[in-house]
Amino acid sequence: MKRPTIADIARRAGVSKGAVSYALNGRPGVSAGTRQRILAIAEEVGWQPNSAARALSGSMSNVVGLALCRPARVLGIEPFFMELISGLEAELSARDYGLTLQVVADADAELAVHRRWWAERRVDGVLVCDLRVDDPRVPALEELGLPAVVIGGPAHTGGLPSVWHDDAQPLAETVEYLAALGHRRIAHVAGLPELLHTRVRTEAFHDVTTRLALPEAVTVSSDYTGEAGARITRRLLSSPRRPTAVIYDNDVMAIAGLGVAQELRLDVPGDLSIVAWDDSPLCQLTHPALTALGRDIPAYGAIAAKRLLAAIAGEDVGDHRDVPAQLTTRGSTGAPR
Amino acid sequence: MKRPTIADIARRAGVSKGAVSYALNGRPGVSAGTRQRILAIAEEVGWQPNSAARALSGSMSNVVGLALCRPARVLGIEPFFMELISGLEAELSARDYGLTLQVVADADAELAVHRRWWAERRVDGVLVCDLRVDDPRVPALEELGLPAVVIGGPAHTGGLPSVWHDDAQPLAETVEYLAALGHRRIAHVAGLPELLHTRVRTEAFHDVTTRLALPEAVTVSSDYTGEAGARITRRLLSSPRRPTAVIYDNDVMAIAGLGVAQELRLDVPGDLSIVAWDDSPLCQLTHPALTALGRDIPAYGAIAAKRLLAAIAGEDVGDHRDVPAQLTTRGSTGAPR
Repeated sequence: MKRPTIADIARRAGVSKGAVSYALNGRPGVSAGTRQRILAIAEEVGWQPNSAARALSGSMSNVVGLALCRPARVLGIEPFFMELISGLEAELSARDYGLTLQVVADADAELAVHRRWWAERRVDGVLVCDLRVDDPRVPALEELGLPAVVIGGPAHTGGLPSVWHDDAQPLAETVEYLAALGHRRIAHVAGLPELLHTRVRTEAFHDVTTRLALPEAVTVSSDYTGEAGARITRRLLSSPRRPTAVIYDNDVMAIAGLGVAQELRLDVPGDLSIVAWDDSPLCQLTHPALTALGRDIPAYGAIAAKRLLAAIAGEDVGDHRDVPAQLTTRGSTGAPR
Repeated sequence: MKRPTIADIARRAGVSKGAVSYALNGRPGVSAGTRQRILAIAEEVGWQPNSAARALSGSMSNVVGLALCRPARVLGIEPFFMELISGLEAELSARDYGLTLQVVADADAELAVHRRWWAERRVDGVLVCDLRVDDPRVPALEELGLPAVVIGGPAHTGGLPSVWHDDAQPLAETVEYLAALGHRRIAHVAGLPELLHTRVRTEAFHDVTTRLALPEAVTVSSDYTGEAGARITRRLLSSPRRPTAVIYDNDVMAIAGLGVAQELRLDVPGDLSIVAWDDSPLCQLTHPALTALGRDIPAYGAIAAKRLLAAIAGEDVGDHRDVPAQLTTRGSTGAPR
């Protein structure tokens, strides 16, 4: 898979990289004989005009790729990705880099996109989102040699550098806060079960509710859509021993949960406390406003972009542990009555 | 602004384009003398290695650009753009094209991005959103010769092809529907006043409320944020002769308006009817669900992408008038009590 570089050709020809560049670029500065020898070697090692072109001009594609494996309709309403993208953009534009975005159907399609981008030199590196447990993209990207930064973790990132934050502690603190308010029956409406951060949150929820002796704690998986949030909330609130507090793994599901509580004429927070993960402006538009776990997502995106550009420049980039989410309490949480 | 092409060099040198390509590519197939002559001409006409690269490989950049001039935090919560982007993506990916996205601060910055993209051959064409009245981007893009499709209209698009839809008729029908329910005091919370479609909607609102003899109709401009929607709604509902129905120019402001009505203990729709423009899944998450004007935004994006690719291929692309928005009534509208 390794593409031949100017350095490879220079080594074989026993000349400087500059001489190779002159020869391949068809510029003066190298003798006719050397030029022919360099061209012959370039042909032998399978030097591609397309990758050549970039090397010749002394530049890369100056584009970073992001393939997102989420249904378009979920992307459309979830603020997280646009906030992340705006953070990536801010850093990339400042460094004269573009961002190429592609929505893909599944992990296989994403890998195919990465391979094509790299083979055609459309991107200099990629960002990887929605890290899964034993994610097949990690070994594939390592083998490809395409510079990449994983947005997610901890661990499960192989030798790839990552930008991540801890989800376990904020979740535990949220449950402790709800328990301190007097809640004994707490539900967790989780995201896609195959995602690593869903597993981290779900395990943390299990651990803290066990520690606090809250045996009726329950986690239900979802696909992050408002429809799923509403359906699950309706089921939870229709049970004889309904939860008095629900933690949702995104803002859209929490808003849907509030809508269902209002539909069932339940008072929020008297009958039901609601916590949203991913604090976004949406959380402050509802009445009551939603208590939420928030982080500076654009800043997170900017850090990921910065580290990817460092990786592209050949720097040794390690893992970056970002600050964890903070709980902002608003009208949607209170003591159960 | 015109970039020199292989054809230009071939013409000057009196050789074939193939010979120029061989020479510039540093490949065998052309004599040393001809090579030197071609290289000299390439240097003379300011041939750039970067644009050379694409021409050499016989390909374009196969990338389409979209610069968005909206604050990141608005982009982050407004479903419209991600839905549009997902529609663009679907069409572009199928044609093996990438989408490069850049968030810019203002129209000048957007033009600078377009110039750079085109000069460096980073994109083969661009999409233009948020069309303004007498938009300076239109003549600038025409002069640049960069293939472009404007998403917006009618008119104000110069000689550029556009994909647009009528906003006047759906707005008039919505006001007629509210009037038929018995509403006499209707407010319109509009978007950015400099945008063409805001002007179209505002004029249509003025015309229909005049025709229906609703003298207390009022339009208030906003920046599309939920904060603005909430602030304006609070002011409207605090006035002695408050409106009994409000039409919002996006979904996020309508949700904020519903939150304010609930904060003020007003019944929706008994005390206040709410209509959202841009029906999105968010409109169905609230209680009551929001009556909304909706269109298939991803399909709209796909049409725009298809027409841009045709323009890039050199086809003569005219304007495309898309279907207008349809009103879907839900729980947030009813007769005033």
